[in-house]
Amino acid sequence: LAAVAWKAGQPLVIEEVEVAPPPAMEIYIKILFTSPIDVFAELVSRGQKPVFSWIFGHEAGRIVESIREGFTELAPGDHILPVFIRECKDCAHCKSEESNMSTLLRINTDIGVMIGDGLSRFLINGKPIYHFVRTSMFSKHTVVHVGCLAKPPKGPIHIVDALSIGIPTPIAAVLSLAKTATPESSVVAFGLGAINLAAVEGARITGASRTIGVDVNPRRFLEAKKSDVNEFVNPKDYQKSVQEVLAEMTDGGVDRSIECTGNIDAMILAFECVHDGWGVVVLVRVPHKDAISKTHPMNVLNEITLKGTFFGNCKLHSDLPVVVERYMNKELELEKFITHEVPFFRFPASLLPNKISMASGLRPVLVVHTK
Amino acid sequence: LAAVAWKAGQPLVIEEVEVAPPPAMEIYIKILFTSPIDVFAELVSRGQKPVFSWIFGHEAGRIVESIREGFTELAPGDHILPVFIRECKDCAHCKSEESNMSTLLRINTDIGVMIGDGLSRFLINGKPIYHFVRTSMFSKHTVVHVGCLAKPPKGPIHIVDALSIGIPTPIAAVLSLAKTATPESSVVAFGLGAINLAAVEGARITGASRTIGVDVNPRRFLEAKKSDVNEFVNPKDYQKSVQEVLAEMTDGGVDRSIECTGNIDAMILAFECVHDGWGVVVLVRVPHKDAISKTHPMNVLNEITLKGTFFGNCKLHSDLPVVVERYMNKELELEKFITHEVPFFRFPASLLPNKISMASGLRPVLVVHTK
Repeated sequence: LAAVAWKAGQPLVIEEVEVAPPPAMEIYIKILFTSPIDVFAELVSRGQKPVFSWIFGHEAGRIVESIREGFTELAPGDHILPVFIRECKDCAHCKSEESNMSTLLRINTDIGVMIGDGLSRFLINGKPIYHFVRTSMFSKHTVVHVGCLAKPPKGPIHIVDALSIGIPTPIAAVLSLAKTATPESSVVAFGLGAINLAAVEGARITGASRTIGVDVNPRRFLEAKKSDVNEFVNPKDYQKSVQEVLAEMTDGGVDRSIECTGNIDAMILAFECVHDGWGVVVLVRVPHKDAISKTHPMNVLNEITLKGTFFGNCKLHSDLPVVVERYMNKELELEKFITHEVPFFRFPASLLPNKISMASGLRPVLVVHTK
Repeated sequence: LAAVAWKAGQPLVIEEVEVAPPPAMEIYIKILFTSPIDVFAELVSRGQKPVFSWIFGHEAGRIVESIREGFTELAPGDHILPVFIRECKDCAHCKSEESNMSTLLRINTDIGVMIGDGLSRFLINGKPIYHFVRTSMFSKHTVVHVGCLAKPPKGPIHIVDALSIGIPTPIAAVLSLAKTATPESSVVAFGLGAINLAAVEGARITGASRTIGVDVNPRRFLEAKKSDVNEFVNPKDYQKSVQEVLAEMTDGGVDRSIECTGNIDAMILAFECVHDGWGVVVLVRVPHKDAISKTHPMNVLNEITLKGTFFGNCKLHSDLPVVVERYMNKELELEKFITHEVPFFRFPASLLPNKISMASGLRPVLVVHTK
């Protein structure tokens, strides 16, 4: 069974799908939980072309169902996190300490097939249904390239599921800043959706003492209070610019700013609100393909550092299990991101693939049982 | 004697200038050498207002002529480097490892007077002539706030003179990148003027093996060959964009790019030509006040880091003497930047303050004797 996206703008439909047996370098896995958030809308807005029909889903907690003989790194029953990036440890990106953008298996929604033989493993009446960013987790079973699987420390699989992209991305992005953050640091998050709250969670564990949330929706402030956002700015409450408000609150500018909305105006704002001399801006979300960032270059020259991130600059094997470990050690709180549990057969009707985006608000991270 | 700038666009005029005795926290110094480059044009283009009449000059090798009793950090005869920034070790900027933008004595061309009493120390017929960025080195004697003086290791003063701004700025900017540069690193410099060649010198001592220079003037290529630029790109030689040419030369993009022209198009280009995953862009020069940087934000999100610098992020006491030491240890070659020596009384006529800028070409760093 899988939730198939036959067409953009149409609800997903639960269908019987045949899953072809995996050849070498691919693993057949059973999905226990998934999250109904998807990067589909972002990727299309970024200019990538969808190849319908698709099986979406790129966040899941899974177990290995079967593996081919001779493959010793995983065993049936292993808990795994499938992620749309990989770490081959062989290409220039994997060898670089700074990059997680492995050349092989780089994210690309134009490719709905497996890289080994160029075929899809999903079939309905002999017709291929495409894979989505090499994960396709809105399915009871799927086949994934071994390069895309992380083997985290064993934890409650429905919680660890939350660590396959939406939540670890901002956390990892913030952790990569921790080198320079001090207990006196102020961190501002733009937008107070789940991703931003995860960024705040990351800021908390790096020791930042001031976390400021900026959002135009007062309802989200209430939600954010349960997290570690201790100050709020609603741009609508001020005559002056958010840059000026933040500069006054922080004696010249915030130390670190995290942008997780993908909105170009928020991105520019995040950039213009950090303190000269040492401010660091981290951009987490994917902007619209037609977005153009404009700013006065003096804003950069005042010794500001701008860091772009992709999946939080988190490497699949080297970094992601460390984030899970931090959860297991009770440093990270993840339970608060899980607000509902919904059975698999009930959720597709509410999912319109071209409308799905965590950017749209304080979206609860929903855990969907696949049974 | 000093070279006075009476009016914008007029040659400097050598005049007899009375130098008032310095109060506490100021030092009376004799200038032995200076360099006829100035940031005047840049600062005006950046939107700061000139306060004529001025004595320009912000690069010099000097010796302390006299000091007030009780001040023990310097003694008459000490060789010093006066710089337009300071390091107080007390403000948030000085306490930050990342910033050199000390709050007190921050560069500001609108202020032509001393911060102690708000007066100028230069007088002609009782009328004040203003200080320029707190240095004013086109003069045989000057008065400078102690906060702006670095005491480098003793070296040949006319060479060390070259280390008071134009040359150490790009060198320091590149050294601050050295943390991540490897021997395999490729570094591209935009424009091949003296500042960029200094950036290349910095790249050489960090161990970068490939240094690529981009310039539209083929004459500068010949000059740059004497430095450590080992590959050239003249955009006029190609149908395709410089970004594409560099990407092909470097298998996807350069590792580090240094922009020292201040030209907004070159700044954007510098940004767009680095490798995804690990590319770092360093901006060194001041752009025009009306410049707007525009780029697609995906260029940032591909894990690129953009670093803005001011005076190469070099701190007056903590970092600048280290650059001088590198010269003394023969790691840095500075002699090549000194192409002419001109007596003080001859140089003013050729200096039109609103036309002076090292950005304008392969300007030799001229050493001017003050006698």
